[in-house]
Amino acid sequence: MTSTLARRAGAELVGTAFLLMAVIGSGIAAVRLSPDDTGLQLLQNSVVTGAALVALILALQPVSAAFNPVVTLVERAFGSLGNRETAALLAAQVAGGMLGAVLANLMFDLDAVSIATRDRSGGGLWLAEAVATFGLVLVIFGGLRSGRPETVAFAVGGYITAAYWFTSSTSFANPAVTLARMLSDTFTGIAPSSVAMFVLMQLVGAGLAAIVVRALYPEAARSLPVERSAR
Amino acid sequence: MTSTLARRAGAELVGTAFLLMAVIGSGIAAVRLSPDDTGLQLLQNSVVTGAALVALILALQPVSAAFNPVVTLVERAFGSLGNRETAALLAAQVAGGMLGAVLANLMFDLDAVSIATRDRSGGGLWLAEAVATFGLVLVIFGGLRSGRPETVAFAVGGYITAAYWFTSSTSFANPAVTLARMLSDTFTGIAPSSVAMFVLMQLVGAGLAAIVVRALYPEAARSLPVERSAR
Amino acid sequence: MTSTLARRAGAELVGTAFLLMAVIGSGIAAVRLSPDDTGLQLLQNSVVTGAALVALILALQPVSAAFNPVVTLVERAFGSLGNRETAALLAAQVAGGMLGAVLANLMFDLDAVSIATRDRSGGGLWLAEAVATFGLVLVIFGGLRSGRPETVAFAVGGYITAAYWFTSSTSFANPAVTLARMLSDTFTGIAPSSVAMFVLMQLVGAGLAAIVVRALYPEAARSLPVERSAR
Amino acid sequence: MTSTLARRAGAELVGTAFLLMAVIGSGIAAVRLSPDDTGLQLLQNSVVTGAALVALILALQPVSAAFNPVVTLVERAFGSLGNRETAALLAAQVAGGMLGAVLANLMFDLDAVSIATRDRSGGGLWLAEAVATFGLVLVIFGGLRSGRPETVAFAVGGYITAAYWFTSSTSFANPAVTLARMLSDTFTGIAPSSVAMFVLMQLVGAGLAAIVVRALYPEAARSLPVERSAR
Repeated sequence: MTSTLARRAGAELVGTAFLLMAVIGSGIAAVRLSPDDTGLQLLQNSVVTGAALVALILALQPVSAAFNPVVTLVERAFGSLGNRETAALLAAQVAGGMLGAVLANLMFDLDAVSIATRDRSGGGLWLAEAVATFGLVLVIFGGLRSGRPETVAFAVGGYITAAYWFTSSTSFANPAVTLARMLSDTFTGIAPSSVAMFVLMQLVGAGLAAIVVRALYPEAARSLPVERSAR
Repeated sequence: MTSTLARRAGAELVGTAFLLMAVIGSGIAAVRLSPDDTGLQLLQNSVVTGAALVALILALQPVSAAFNPVVTLVERAFGSLGNRETAALLAAQVAGGMLGAVLANLMFDLDAVSIATRDRSGGGLWLAEAVATFGLVLVIFGGLRSGRPETVAFAVGGYITAAYWFTSSTSFANPAVTLARMLSDTFTGIAPSSVAMFVLMQLVGAGLAAIVVRALYPEAARSLPVERSAR
Repeated sequence: MTSTLARRAGAELVGTAFLLMAVIGSGIAAVRLSPDDTGLQLLQNSVVTGAALVALILALQPVSAAFNPVVTLVERAFGSLGNRETAALLAAQVAGGMLGAVLANLMFDLDAVSIATRDRSGGGLWLAEAVATFGLVLVIFGGLRSGRPETVAFAVGGYITAAYWFTSSTSFANPAVTLARMLSDTFTGIAPSSVAMFVLMQLVGAGLAAIVVRALYPEAARSLPVERSAR
Repeated sequence: MTSTLARRAGAELVGTAFLLMAVIGSGIAAVRLSPDDTGLQLLQNSVVTGAALVALILALQPVSAAFNPVVTLVERAFGSLGNRETAALLAAQVAGGMLGAVLANLMFDLDAVSIATRDRSGGGLWLAEAVATFGLVLVIFGGLRSGRPETVAFAVGGYITAAYWFTSSTSFANPAVTLARMLSDTFTGIAPSSVAMFVLMQLVGAGLAAIVVRALYPEAARSLPVERSAR
């Protein structure tokens, strides 16, 4: 692995780990501290996740800040990543997500891993995951392909805070996040049996979004990948 | 329709659809999750709508990001849009809003369409819609006419989050949003019989704001329309 | 009055009116919608006021966006405003604040004016007003004197949201706001008998801050007044 | 002390004082106003702290805006500060934090100083402090070393709002903050017996982060210290 690719994979690992800590950790804290109002729990969870994404993308974007396999796959489809780079970044995202789940559990004095039991399935939820991922990909590549990568952190932070609420699935919209959320049987967990359909719908939503992005922004302002585009 | 106009109409359709999903979807979720406190519901609804607007305007502004017929009409009045373009964008906004309402309903396992029954009328509310739209137009064109389109996403997001609260009507401030909110008999719905006065007051507020904007910013920093001004 | 000064006074009037609508209107809504938790009311009120300030300063800063007599007086002390301009802007701020209070009352179907009865006095509160205004002046002029006026909207929005909470007075920090809040006997009202000490402490805090600002930023990056510095 | 160093120490003192007022003051207000929901208290506390950090860093960064001994120590390790400067800034941060704690107490009509009695210890919390400080240092120096200091205020504000929730310790992540929070026996207080381990874990987290930052950003975009890098 080249030094540059190692740095990029490292940024994806660290960033995705913190993203999962934000998602899972704030979910645990929300349920402990506001036990009587699920809406207040979700408000805490969604504001925290959005705020963490602003910080993480701002901090890591000049190296690599997708934190999401579907984003990396769309970049591959757009030709700004090669196969070897794509594989390394995907692996880093999945590993980072799992690391984050474990750290969140440990910080709150839970077992390092507990398999989630919360079933998340049904037509409304599956539609919601496709819609949620469609919007996320639109928001990210709208900024990137118009040559304004400095807007992406704020767009993603705002979008995810909102999508937790306006999609019935609470907008996982990220296969690495979905996999890692199997590892904590807490507020934000997802039962393994619900994962495949979530990931499938995320891929569908991302694929549709890539078509729309290419139609809306037929010429990319820069041919650089996300990782380099902030400079 | 030229390719450019098609892209612009497409961005208005997609963006307005997501705006309506944010408004209606988060309203449904808020009532389900925080059933005991209307204020908490409105906090969730208003933060989500503002956050979604930041994301959507950042993502789509280089193509087109009015999402609101009164904004497009003020652009027409300022001479930055022709009649044919104006008609296409208005149609896309109305269609997009309705699409968003339907998607929101479906994601939450409701009927695709249910006509809202919530009456919203009275002198205070009508004044509020005029004030709300006045402020929204001021905020948008203050940024555009001073040559700082990159500020508009944050200004609109902040403004709408606030105006949900400081106007008694919860600040619809948008005819496409008003029409679409007829199609979901949920927290954010509006009965058809209340729509005409809301839209009328929105037009009054926007018209007054256009006069004030022209007085405050007598020379537009750029003559480009919203759609192109972000570059 | 020159055309430029008329525009600047107009921007102060409109902006301060919307600021007061945000403060008073959201306070009325908060009490009606979340009657059981004063903290939730203040969260709503503070987030709304901060969000509105971001929007209003972004929209009006190229013309004039102090919305606060102590800010205008510090500009006068720093030599970037003449006496005639200062007087016109102060008058516009006070008039705009009162207009905003009346509009807020009317939107919520209250009498146009009701004199507030809420006593706000005591050593802790007076200290708090001096601290709050000190911080506000520091935050505004830190951005302006370092030549980064585009940061001021976000700094002020963040500061005021926070200062509602960390000062025991809920941070009026603005004589025009203080005067106007006499005119609504609601959540954010202040009894006339409490006004003089609040304004006095605001002037003390602002004066101390002006000294500190000059020490920290001995050379202003630009000699332009707030009104012009955004361009 | 040179004039420049005096200004920098002054900015650290004032900024850290306001940071501690934000932390402690909003904690006092939250408990008084929302006595029945600890989660709502933490939401108020975390949003306020994040918003205050955005404002304070934007206002003071061109002079000095670390407000945190571990940040200053990492700068020393990276060679952008000398020993004398480091010592002066650390002293200013500690003194400013204590001043802020006293002012917060006085504004809320409490004794100027009351020693906190709240025990904060245990493996989960200690891990959390290391994680929290690791992330904070990553976020700050990610922005600085990539030559984008103007992003740091938003990244830190977002990060701290989030980290209050996703770390079980509520993310002190700052030795000056930790010391000062001994001086107020209120919501955000920490018993003196818990301080040493918190500070130790903060130093561990910061040290690890410095290694990662250097790996991710091997060449600093600018050799300037935080204090000067905003220009």
